[in-house]
Amino acid sequence: MKALVFDNELKLDKNYPMPKVKDNEVLIKTSLVGICNTDYEITKGYMGYKGVLGHEFVGVVVEVGSNVDKNLINKRVVGEINCACGVCEYCKKDLQRHCPNRQTLGIWQKDGCFSEYFTLPKENVIEISDNIDDKTAVFTEPLAAAYEIIEQIHIKPHSKVAILGDGKLGLCISLVFNALNIDYVHIGKHSEKLEISKKLGAKTKLLDELTDNDKKSFDVVIEATGSVGGFETSVSLVKPRGILVLKSTISAKEGLNLAGVVVDEITIVGSRCGQFRPLLRLLENKKIDVTPLIDGVFEVDNFENAFEKNAQKNTLKILVKF
Amino acid sequence: MKALVFDNELKLDKNYPMPKVKDNEVLIKTSLVGICNTDYEITKGYMGYKGVLGHEFVGVVVEVGSNVDKNLINKRVVGEINCACGVCEYCKKDLQRHCPNRQTLGIWQKDGCFSEYFTLPKENVIEISDNIDDKTAVFTEPLAAAYEIIEQIHIKPHSKVAILGDGKLGLCISLVFNALNIDYVHIGKHSEKLEISKKLGAKTKLLDELTDNDKKSFDVVIEATGSVGGFETSVSLVKPRGILVLKSTISAKEGLNLAGVVVDEITIVGSRCGQFRPLLRLLENKKIDVTPLIDGVFEVDNFENAFEKNAQKNTLKILVKF
Repeated sequence: MKALVFDNELKLDKNYPMPKVKDNEVLIKTSLVGICNTDYEITKGYMGYKGVLGHEFVGVVVEVGSNVDKNLINKRVVGEINCACGVCEYCKKDLQRHCPNRQTLGIWQKDGCFSEYFTLPKENVIEISDNIDDKTAVFTEPLAAAYEIIEQIHIKPHSKVAILGDGKLGLCISLVFNALNIDYVHIGKHSEKLEISKKLGAKTKLLDELTDNDKKSFDVVIEATGSVGGFETSVSLVKPRGILVLKSTISAKEGLNLAGVVVDEITIVGSRCGQFRPLLRLLENKKIDVTPLIDGVFEVDNFENAFEKNAQKNTLKILVKF
Repeated sequence: MKALVFDNELKLDKNYPMPKVKDNEVLIKTSLVGICNTDYEITKGYMGYKGVLGHEFVGVVVEVGSNVDKNLINKRVVGEINCACGVCEYCKKDLQRHCPNRQTLGIWQKDGCFSEYFTLPKENVIEISDNIDDKTAVFTEPLAAAYEIIEQIHIKPHSKVAILGDGKLGLCISLVFNALNIDYVHIGKHSEKLEISKKLGAKTKLLDELTDNDKKSFDVVIEATGSVGGFETSVSLVKPRGILVLKSTISAKEGLNLAGVVVDEITIVGSRCGQFRPLLRLLENKKIDVTPLIDGVFEVDNFENAFEKNAQKNTLKILVKF
């Protein structure tokens, strides 16, 4: 089968071995895959991962293991990406995404979905409604990661919220927050991207329109830029005793001063993957339109162009068809 | 009057003008003052503060303004250090220590307590019981800063807690946590300082006794080292979805990587000053013995030796008598 494999370089292997389905697993035939920044970072060495890339997908179950209900066959599915042990203290608390024994699809110790077929444990697979089309369904994972914020912190109806960053991540958060009627300002550097939020009815602001009045004025700030400068701006925007949600991994090469975090007693909440079901309710009910975030759909044979386009500045989501 | 003034250099001014008592203020005759690391940092430029140093004190009220109950005269008092406006959104929520209009005793726009007399608004002053001696009372402010952690986060009876750092700050936290029956391990570099916690019955561990089993094993980690290395060790010790309390201001000159905070969805809580009354209940009930933390008591005329001793590595609390 065809599989997009990273092993020091990214290659389309046309004779990659078909995965074997274990008793507890399903075999999925891939329909559509999204390129995530994590995929790009893996090709730069992140996690030291080698294998088939990819963790954002929609597909169809074509085979099931002996312990799996046969009715799943031919069903359209999405799937949670952390494959957990099921018995540790995190799994018992429904925090499979923090299971210390987990493998993560296309990121850690498990071949990903950038291939014609791949496997997942049955617990990870969720059948989706016919009224969620493939292009929407493939956004389930990144939108669930945005929804994770609401799992972790209590944003109150009157909370004053800012999303900092207008890339894919910031826009996914904007789509979810808009669907949940949160009162937020989307702050970024690119008016054409902020326009996507504006069309939803959200307030937007260019970074250089921020004034002293914006400082220490937000109950909750979501940092979605991934830059040291973005982190520092976020700290400056949040109120004393407010919450800063860190959605992007930040590695400071210069200095990163946490003194303001202590003086203003700010709470920083690291935030990663989210559960799919609450997000799928939004998609089923047509509360989110992902169309403005799609910047291209490529055939897998054309993966080089897809990754090249993805790496270009200001590109939003690139999808790959199988 | 005598006052220890910082204005590019630290000097004992023997003819500093007596402060005038406003309608809402009390005049306090200083008994005993503690040297805080913040005092030392101010002499290195922190906050750009110039004026009389000092914010840890016990003293006696000798005069009151026209709007203050005269019964306060001759009472032994301690005092909260943030002088707030009383009308803003933070003051209304009893968060005077985050009032944006605040002055802070000996730190920001208000002469401190390293002088024979100084003033505070009546709201800041708390009369103390006779059974709290001066040497204990002067620890009210740093111990209240330790107690602030309990104001901010819910440490459960079965929570697994680590305090990282065995300086003054870490030891103050250890004294308070011990008094509150929290199950914690005090981790540090100096066995002679950890001995203070050990004598209380606390578990202790030298930094280089930490093993892989300690990694990601604590529900709550208190970072009280103030170093980048300490911060990174703290991140490595806290469980996924756990809480890291940042008690010390950290400025990273090298890199500071927050990726682990996102991946493990750690919550970082900045923590600064605390309210005095809960802590004073502990002192009244003799639940805390500060004696092992006192490394010297100096006369104010001998302030140079006091600050010199304070600056020496491994010195704990230095007190100055007036």
